[in-house]
Amino acid sequence: MEKSWYNISIIGAGKLAWHLAHAITSEGLRINKVYSRSEASANKLVQSIKQGNTTTDKDFTNSTSNIFFIALPDDVVPIILKDFHFPENTLLLHTSGTLPLSVLKDASKKNGVFYPLQTFSFGKEVDFKKIPICLEASDESSLTKASNLAKFLSNEVHLISSEKRKFLHLAAVFACNFSNRLFVLSKDILAQEEIPFQILSNLVNETVVKAFEIGPENAQTGPAARNDLKTIEAHTKLLRDNSEKLEIYKLLSDSIRGIK
Amino acid sequence: MEKSWYNISIIGAGKLAWHLAHAITSEGLRINKVYSRSEASANKLVQSIKQGNTTTDKDFTNSTSNIFFIALPDDVVPIILKDFHFPENTLLLHTSGTLPLSVLKDASKKNGVFYPLQTFSFGKEVDFKKIPICLEASDESSLTKASNLAKFLSNEVHLISSEKRKFLHLAAVFACNFSNRLFVLSKDILAQEEIPFQILSNLVNETVVKAFEIGPENAQTGPAARNDLKTIEAHTKLLRDNSEKLEIYKLLSDSIRGIK
Repeated sequence: MEKSWYNISIIGAGKLAWHLAHAITSEGLRINKVYSRSEASANKLVQSIKQGNTTTDKDFTNSTSNIFFIALPDDVVPIILKDFHFPENTLLLHTSGTLPLSVLKDASKKNGVFYPLQTFSFGKEVDFKKIPICLEASDESSLTKASNLAKFLSNEVHLISSEKRKFLHLAAVFACNFSNRLFVLSKDILAQEEIPFQILSNLVNETVVKAFEIGPENAQTGPAARNDLKTIEAHTKLLRDNSEKLEIYKLLSDSIRGIK
Repeated sequence: MEKSWYNISIIGAGKLAWHLAHAITSEGLRINKVYSRSEASANKLVQSIKQGNTTTDKDFTNSTSNIFFIALPDDVVPIILKDFHFPENTLLLHTSGTLPLSVLKDASKKNGVFYPLQTFSFGKEVDFKKIPICLEASDESSLTKASNLAKFLSNEVHLISSEKRKFLHLAAVFACNFSNRLFVLSKDILAQEEIPFQILSNLVNETVVKAFEIGPENAQTGPAARNDLKTIEAHTKLLRDNSEKLEIYKLLSDSIRGIK
């Protein structure tokens, strides 16, 4: 498919819809309709991409779009989809990391997953070209359509089944959500001593660079990695009045030491 | 003090000594002697900075150096220092994140800590200007000497007492060593599904950027942050055969949910 083949509508006007719509139009692809329960947010999006129209109508039976993106919160998708009507043989793509492909099957027999592996914020530009797009589809021709589109928007396109996608999401929770929690605890410890968290910026960045350059299993440093029990004991003493941090310290140190 | 005042010797020729010596000479400051138990590694360092001489002699009583850096492993410093002799009134600086200032007091009454908050590797260039230098000293004039020197080498100089430095090191363990462990576990989960760890590179980098831009406490996302018990349950099921990852998943999710 050429770019001109695509005639895209988006259900949703949240953060993901916003960044997706901008990636689509900046590649010269066409947005037809943007649906949102809130007409105001749909309007804002349509104005910012300078094309397409908003709608609050859930009946798309007569739409000319051949691709519909479902960019709604995970818990909303299975419920709200029942109220929508799509043209026959249209390709329906959801954008969720956790929902299986099968949530779409009653809404359209041609369906797929188009999951950009990234967290989005309003007002913060992202380089969509660098975002891995995880794809899955109900059939070969749908996969081709989704995959061609993905390659227009990103340099990194992966075929990932629903089953594998579950583990990918779990792995992202460990690498991103849980790391961020450790940053919160770290900032807490520093705040008590009136040391700015910024002091760790360079070291954290270097940790991430190394983990992806040489593999995190080769980059592990610190007292637990060198089995430095004296420092571990000193640290647990510093944490004695904070059971949450102490428990996390012990568990992750044991994990690094291989005694978990 | 002008740059020309400094006449620096370094005890140690390991990774930290290597990067410190290069930072010193590239700022036009003078290295006099490099001591190492292994003459070969001292030679290699001296050749690479193209100045100074190596020594294996522990008696520096007649040295012309006015600053000595102790860049040795933490556990070695208190033991080995007893064998050294330094000129009277010379400034002795150790470079450790965990050792107190007091380990130096018997070796020289003028002493201080000059702790670059970074992990160093051989063969990997670092921008020393961006590394926070944590300083402490026995007296005002020693602090001035150390601080002037630190400002020649880095744009980020902090005064941190031994007591505060303990907490800084602990905070770095949470933010860096423990995050790296989570990367290892994450890579493990992906490897079982034959998904390359590289797929998370962009997302992890974005997590770190956000944590330092808006504060990690404002950047927390994921199932635990939105109290999405359904996803948490699905994840714990995926981990049911791995007690280590399961325990870490539960503890960090509880921590994010504020029920720890």
